[in-house]
Amino acid sequence: MQYVKIKDVIVEQIESGLLSARQKLPSERKLAESFDTTRVTLREALSLLEAEGKIYREDRRGWFISPAPLRYDPTRTLNFNNMALQQNRIPRTELALSKNVMATKQASELLDLPPFSDVIQVERVRYLEDRPVVYVINYIRPEIVPNLLDHDLSQSLTELYKEHFGIEYLETRYRVSTTSLLGQTATALRATSGSPAMMVERLNYDQHGNLVDCDIECWRHDAICIESFAKLER
Amino acid sequence: MQYVKIKDVIVEQIESGLLSARQKLPSERKLAESFDTTRVTLREALSLLEAEGKIYREDRRGWFISPAPLRYDPTRTLNFNNMALQQNRIPRTELALSKNVMATKQASELLDLPPFSDVIQVERVRYLEDRPVVYVINYIRPEIVPNLLDHDLSQSLTELYKEHFGIEYLETRYRVSTTSLLGQTATALRATSGSPAMMVERLNYDQHGNLVDCDIECWRHDAICIESFAKLER
Repeated sequence: MQYVKIKDVIVEQIESGLLSARQKLPSERKLAESFDTTRVTLREALSLLEAEGKIYREDRRGWFISPAPLRYDPTRTLNFNNMALQQNRIPRTELALSKNVMATKQASELLDLPPFSDVIQVERVRYLEDRPVVYVINYIRPEIVPNLLDHDLSQSLTELYKEHFGIEYLETRYRVSTTSLLGQTATALRATSGSPAMMVERLNYDQHGNLVDCDIECWRHDAICIESFAKLER
Repeated sequence: MQYVKIKDVIVEQIESGLLSARQKLPSERKLAESFDTTRVTLREALSLLEAEGKIYREDRRGWFISPAPLRYDPTRTLNFNNMALQQNRIPRTELALSKNVMATKQASELLDLPPFSDVIQVERVRYLEDRPVVYVINYIRPEIVPNLLDHDLSQSLTELYKEHFGIEYLETRYRVSTTSLLGQTATALRATSGSPAMMVERLNYDQHGNLVDCDIECWRHDAICIESFAKLER
């Protein structure tokens, strides 16, 4: 199939270093011309490259070569800033929303709360080298971290918890699945609606075994790679 | 956006039980008529549902409602049959290929072997309730399991290892990323070329710390959900 061949040529150019991370691809018209193919076939090749995480699209800006994914080990300290810095990446976090709300159905199920409970909702966009890569929603049990909203929430939550509330994550229950980016999540990540995404949902427990918060992370799927080492239970 | 609304209606019908697992959807033409929309808009809604793992397409057969995903915990015993049975699913495995080969570039990198090494290559398709859900390639170090090819390889490899070679997996290094189904992998899973997939790559170590084999699993992305519980390292 012709579009698979076109895909392979582009992959080769990426792997040989001819195309480098974050570089913008020529317009679809130009690419179709260079490959002597139709726009339809070219788009199929680009879709495959997107599905394989080799390129990504920013809404109305075009296609770009994906940088290496962030290696994310759910059994290690789950601090986005540290994780990025250790991998020589440049992290940044923007606060999108923070407020006390009545728990949504999803939040009360995840946090195992009765209906009409209060929770703190925090939504943030995280960047690597100025590219938005993950939209994170935290639902937090307010009784554990009173007045959390008075702090600067573009900082690391785990560090806030530790410094101001003496709380450290000790255990986490996580779930990884695939989904697509829609609505404000897509917009915040500069993604075309419907782009593929990797969803990581976590329940975080402190050193006393208390459930502190949950987070729902929607990643640009090419920006993350879950990697871990496990001793098997027998 | 109209297609998001159509998607939401179908999700609601699934969640309310009106549409049940493995049920075939009406043809695209009929669906477009019922929703009083165009084929183009309908296809956008179906793509979203596919991206979210709610429906899947079988090549030339149409769209079906996805059953619940198999919960896959990489820190537990990694035996497909047991995992499926514990979750009240019906597993089946078909051997697609088994032979001694010279290690491919990928295999020698994964298994940390010098060029021109021999490896055993085993390719299998695994089914849940007669739906093919994952294409698995194993590359195995032949010195650890001599004459492995004389055994019935549609059985559990981990059980063969244990019974005939006294080998048990003790540790695993794994990596989860997203990709797309192409070529023979797509065909074996009855998928349209380019369908979204979840890739799990594992390196498996035995009780003596020896690397036994690697496996490269390409899952129908809606058929799997990685779920685990981790104590965090500090």
